[in-house]
Amino acid sequence: MAGNTFGKLFQITTFGESHGDGIGVVIDGCPAGLEITREEIQKELDRRKPGTSHLTTPRQEKDQVEMLSGIFEGKTMGTPIALLIRNQDQIPAVYEPIKDLYRPGHADATYDAKYGMRDWRGGGRASARETIGRVAAGAIAKKLLAHAGIQITGYVTQIGNVKITQVDESTITTNPLNCPDATVLDAMIQEIETARKDLDSVGGIVEIIARGVPAGLGEPVFDKLSADLAHGIISIPAVKGIEIGDGFACASKHGSENNDEWALKNDNNNNSHIGTTTNHAGGIIGGISNGEDILLRFALKPTSSIAKKQQTVDRNGTSAEIEVHGRHDPCVAPRAVPVGEAMVALVLADHYLRNKISRIETL
Amino acid sequence: MAGNTFGKLFQITTFGESHGDGIGVVIDGCPAGLEITREEIQKELDRRKPGTSHLTTPRQEKDQVEMLSGIFEGKTMGTPIALLIRNQDQIPAVYEPIKDLYRPGHADATYDAKYGMRDWRGGGRASARETIGRVAAGAIAKKLLAHAGIQITGYVTQIGNVKITQVDESTITTNPLNCPDATVLDAMIQEIETARKDLDSVGGIVEIIARGVPAGLGEPVFDKLSADLAHGIISIPAVKGIEIGDGFACASKHGSENNDEWALKNDNNNNSHIGTTTNHAGGIIGGISNGEDILLRFALKPTSSIAKKQQTVDRNGTSAEIEVHGRHDPCVAPRAVPVGEAMVALVLADHYLRNKISRIETL
Amino acid sequence: MAGNTFGKLFQITTFGESHGDGIGVVIDGCPAGLEITREEIQKELDRRKPGTSHLTTPRQEKDQVEMLSGIFEGKTMGTPIALLIRNQDQIPAVYEPIKDLYRPGHADATYDAKYGMRDWRGGGRASARETIGRVAAGAIAKKLLAHAGIQITGYVTQIGNVKITQVDESTITTNPLNCPDATVLDAMIQEIETARKDLDSVGGIVEIIARGVPAGLGEPVFDKLSADLAHGIISIPAVKGIEIGDGFACASKHGSENNDEWALKNDNNNNSHIGTTTNHAGGIIGGISNGEDILLRFALKPTSSIAKKQQTVDRNGTSAEIEVHGRHDPCVAPRAVPVGEAMVALVLADHYLRNKISRIETL
Amino acid sequence: MAGNTFGKLFQITTFGESHGDGIGVVIDGCPAGLEITREEIQKELDRRKPGTSHLTTPRQEKDQVEMLSGIFEGKTMGTPIALLIRNQDQIPAVYEPIKDLYRPGHADATYDAKYGMRDWRGGGRASARETIGRVAAGAIAKKLLAHAGIQITGYVTQIGNVKITQVDESTITTNPLNCPDATVLDAMIQEIETARKDLDSVGGIVEIIARGVPAGLGEPVFDKLSADLAHGIISIPAVKGIEIGDGFACASKHGSENNDEWALKNDNNNNSHIGTTTNHAGGIIGGISNGEDILLRFALKPTSSIAKKQQTVDRNGTSAEIEVHGRHDPCVAPRAVPVGEAMVALVLADHYLRNKISRIETL
Repeated sequence: MAGNTFGKLFQITTFGESHGDGIGVVIDGCPAGLEITREEIQKELDRRKPGTSHLTTPRQEKDQVEMLSGIFEGKTMGTPIALLIRNQDQIPAVYEPIKDLYRPGHADATYDAKYGMRDWRGGGRASARETIGRVAAGAIAKKLLAHAGIQITGYVTQIGNVKITQVDESTITTNPLNCPDATVLDAMIQEIETARKDLDSVGGIVEIIARGVPAGLGEPVFDKLSADLAHGIISIPAVKGIEIGDGFACASKHGSENNDEWALKNDNNNNSHIGTTTNHAGGIIGGISNGEDILLRFALKPTSSIAKKQQTVDRNGTSAEIEVHGRHDPCVAPRAVPVGEAMVALVLADHYLRNKISRIETL
Repeated sequence: MAGNTFGKLFQITTFGESHGDGIGVVIDGCPAGLEITREEIQKELDRRKPGTSHLTTPRQEKDQVEMLSGIFEGKTMGTPIALLIRNQDQIPAVYEPIKDLYRPGHADATYDAKYGMRDWRGGGRASARETIGRVAAGAIAKKLLAHAGIQITGYVTQIGNVKITQVDESTITTNPLNCPDATVLDAMIQEIETARKDLDSVGGIVEIIARGVPAGLGEPVFDKLSADLAHGIISIPAVKGIEIGDGFACASKHGSENNDEWALKNDNNNNSHIGTTTNHAGGIIGGISNGEDILLRFALKPTSSIAKKQQTVDRNGTSAEIEVHGRHDPCVAPRAVPVGEAMVALVLADHYLRNKISRIETL
Repeated sequence: MAGNTFGKLFQITTFGESHGDGIGVVIDGCPAGLEITREEIQKELDRRKPGTSHLTTPRQEKDQVEMLSGIFEGKTMGTPIALLIRNQDQIPAVYEPIKDLYRPGHADATYDAKYGMRDWRGGGRASARETIGRVAAGAIAKKLLAHAGIQITGYVTQIGNVKITQVDESTITTNPLNCPDATVLDAMIQEIETARKDLDSVGGIVEIIARGVPAGLGEPVFDKLSADLAHGIISIPAVKGIEIGDGFACASKHGSENNDEWALKNDNNNNSHIGTTTNHAGGIIGGISNGEDILLRFALKPTSSIAKKQQTVDRNGTSAEIEVHGRHDPCVAPRAVPVGEAMVALVLADHYLRNKISRIETL
Repeated sequence: MAGNTFGKLFQITTFGESHGDGIGVVIDGCPAGLEITREEIQKELDRRKPGTSHLTTPRQEKDQVEMLSGIFEGKTMGTPIALLIRNQDQIPAVYEPIKDLYRPGHADATYDAKYGMRDWRGGGRASARETIGRVAAGAIAKKLLAHAGIQITGYVTQIGNVKITQVDESTITTNPLNCPDATVLDAMIQEIETARKDLDSVGGIVEIIARGVPAGLGEPVFDKLSADLAHGIISIPAVKGIEIGDGFACASKHGSENNDEWALKNDNNNNSHIGTTTNHAGGIIGGISNGEDILLRFALKPTSSIAKKQQTVDRNGTSAEIEVHGRHDPCVAPRAVPVGEAMVALVLADHYLRNKISRIETL
């Protein structure tokens, strides 16, 4: 019930503050017998960890994962899997001077309003470090999905005013931005560099594709696949919008343009199946996957922590000026790619399991 | 667990198919002692019911609500509230000729893929008639929110290519489109009329504002207010995207533009409180309401049912042409306004209750 | 979250008060394609309905079930199944004189304490009529279990001071007490008749056996099969205790007596499997079924409504004498048999589904 | 959904195997601002830890708790509280010779049936070490309850054939058995000593009292206070039965004996309130607390691990003899006292929060 649990069958509970002892996650509901290594989890964490380029926060965190339970002799046991990542490079002293000030764009005031207190040593639970638990759990979800033939790919499509013009997936891992378009990469880097030099930050957009998703995933009417994806994605820090398939562009279209017609199609093995000839829907119809690629996009606001001077108040309402120094990403979109993939993986793993019990004839 | 329940403390479970006996909802978790009348619920249902103008489906449904339980002597009892709305104007015969065909844009194929069968008499559970239960429950949620000083208003901001240029809330109820801008009303009507004459349909965008929401609602990190709103809104049939506050526009902005600065503000009673001087965030920071207006927008695809000829296949994969006649709205955006309001009300009612137990000092 | 939902995958939500419009249940999570008829549900309701012998309440209720949704062409559709049973033979006037008095043993005072009000027209939500929804849902659960080869049988083992000395299951349905022992039947009837003549009531014990339960059902460590059974059974009105297998008798035994030794056994088809040579555990080890019969027993207090004079107070604390007339069973144990079976069926159906996704190799 | 989470508002998720890295728990939903120290948690763990007398297992575990998150400057923050207790004194080598054998009374076979594998290094997740997480979380629940004026006390009432004849609570902590009756203490010790000398084990019964529980806790009809208590208690390893108040003794009583009459009573401060003159019900009527003491009792089977020779099979069904040596308690009842208290505390804390939102007038 409390808000730190996500998923219903493949269920995760995360814990930890940015400047506490560590960040962790308990995964409950992962089927027994799934092969998983520490390295497979670490690899995903390494994709989101800070300090890998001059375009991200210089905070040095190795983010080494410790597997506390649930895995034995290289396989999941069906028991809860607890993963712990210790915090190491904390400098809470940076925050001491501004501990009573409400940083614009930050959750300081809202945590105070809700809980009557907050961990002022950095972002606490509202820090993006919280997403470490999601990514660690997502690595296991991805492994389960691989078993089901599902792969997930994410990349940046926009940073500031620079948008991609093409997608070449082989390009994604060759640059620190997770950008799939070499032709705009320099311009994107420039957007970030400029923002940083201005003591400012900049927003962006990330796109995720899930391939190999079988038709049938999603539980209408409230746990539609689209609804659960939206829930998971919007819960990522800094995300302010999501769209599935053509999304907001649908609003100005006609049904005859937007409907995806059904046809008999051949898959890679030349087996025929019913599919659609276009994919405006982003692979989800009526809240259930239709066998086409799942496609979604989400918008990230510019990082709230900026060194530029801003007006604010302290917790008593007294006016003040603030400069937020700390160590922050001038643009969170690149590092949001593995986080977005993780959330999509978690939702799909959950629905993959839920769909296994939807028909009497397959029980 | 199953997908027809929404909310955690103020929790609803809906049931019913479009061409079955009726549509209903059970509300569990509404506090005892809330005054509610049948008329208050009926009034909301009347806002979404079909047949009220030539711009909507001519299906004639009175959608009269019956209160089966949970209310006694004009008040909620704390026990589950069951509401039932019988279906009346069903013409399943219309669907008989196309019972084996997959209508483009519809959930026929995905329900078949998931359940191995489907109710071919209309949209079944995937029909927008399903939202009756949401609106009925939303009426009770709104009553609870009124007790807390919260009001919700929705309106159409775009139909096809026509966008509003101003918001005059007094205009909303004076036209069948729930449009707040008299200057574009005729153009919007024209968009719909044209689509219908072309045997086609058209999409749209709806905006919802919640006023009077106290700071503190939302349960990080997964049940953030924004995440639950996204979950609820995207679960509405035909919705393909949602954004909170400035939403997708944030992607191209800098932090110094997008951050809402904190300041001491005066409310209507001249009491001062901490608030923000702008509201790019749409009233939610770190997943928790900040006391400003909650603001969100969602995109609806054009109605899938169109009389225009389309290519498709039947359930065996045999090619066929299809014209979907039935009785459908050429644009669902206007009738999605009360549904969107209902979902926002349900989420806020849920979080209003959840927030009551967040601090030891107020227990 | 609210308290009227039970089960996680095969999930029911009940509603309705004893003297309101009706009693109902929504079943969400039943797999699609299960064949079920109105008659199969009605048959279970007939087993619990009142007025079938002079040993039960004379309240005349036909308890006819109406299937509102979720079933089409004789099969479940995977959508929520709503069942409604209208109340008919209500005489709230009987309760008017005692509407402000707290009946001893009844929930009047506790509902007042919790909700600040209560439905004084009979037991309201605390009435045993509430169990109608459980039995109706249980009929569907039983049908699902039959598909899995699981059968459930219940009977009375004790009424007042009379205990059974043998179990002959063919006897159960031949008498109004659901007693499996013809040699004590008259003495049991006498216990009830005597209580009634004394304007009093008497307690009893019910035993349930589930046969054909495969090994593997149960989700440690909190949703152990035993724990969920205890939850379901103790939630039945008037139940004050439950034991699994040898239960309380284990307390005075040694491990060497109580442990069930494992052995290779032959089933009816002469296939060998690993099982136990005794069944002290009642078919559950470590919270998971072991393939032996599930065996449990629960104690019911004597009916609280008695015509004998008792001391009490009204809601203001003023002393008063009370005689509760209404129409009540002098012993609830016989009619608790189908209710107990229903709860066991609901728990097993839920765990049958949950267990389907416990291992990667069977997905 | 998965089975390692308990509670709905005050919610815990436990993890860890007996011979893995450690045992832990995440508590989500504890209100912010509750003062709690490491010592308060440790104190409860010390009450259940092994090796404190020659009557328990000699396994030496300090069971030191580490607070990983959720607590800052001595107070809960409203964020998830993660507690970790490392395993130290593991000797898995003891289990190597019997790794393929099914120990009678143990969950080896059922875990294999469910998951297709198991952690053979001791009891794994089915070990009573799992209850460490419950006790740690229970310490925080107790602190919350103390804030509400609720205290919980537990003690042993029976070991083997020796039953207590009186309750003197001051005696409980003066002996290693948590026995409240000095007159039977030696006989109880003798029961255990005899069992151990015979390479055997013995069962017992534990009773728990909760005082100061306000009227109104419990959520009918499925989450009745009694039902949730039964769920929690039966989920404790080795528990085979539970009864509330007079429990199974009710079966042979009449309503006029068993009903608790209502009366105006004076509390310690001489304020009058409505209560009952007897407490056969154990403080719960209609599933809701009535303001009297909550009283329950649960039966524990004799420890399954015995050194006495038993017949069994290995996982292939081959017959074998087995002697389970390891280091085990000959009677688990004494150490089950703090575990039982913890479960009662967790249930009451959950319902204390749930009840805060049951009435509109107190919101």
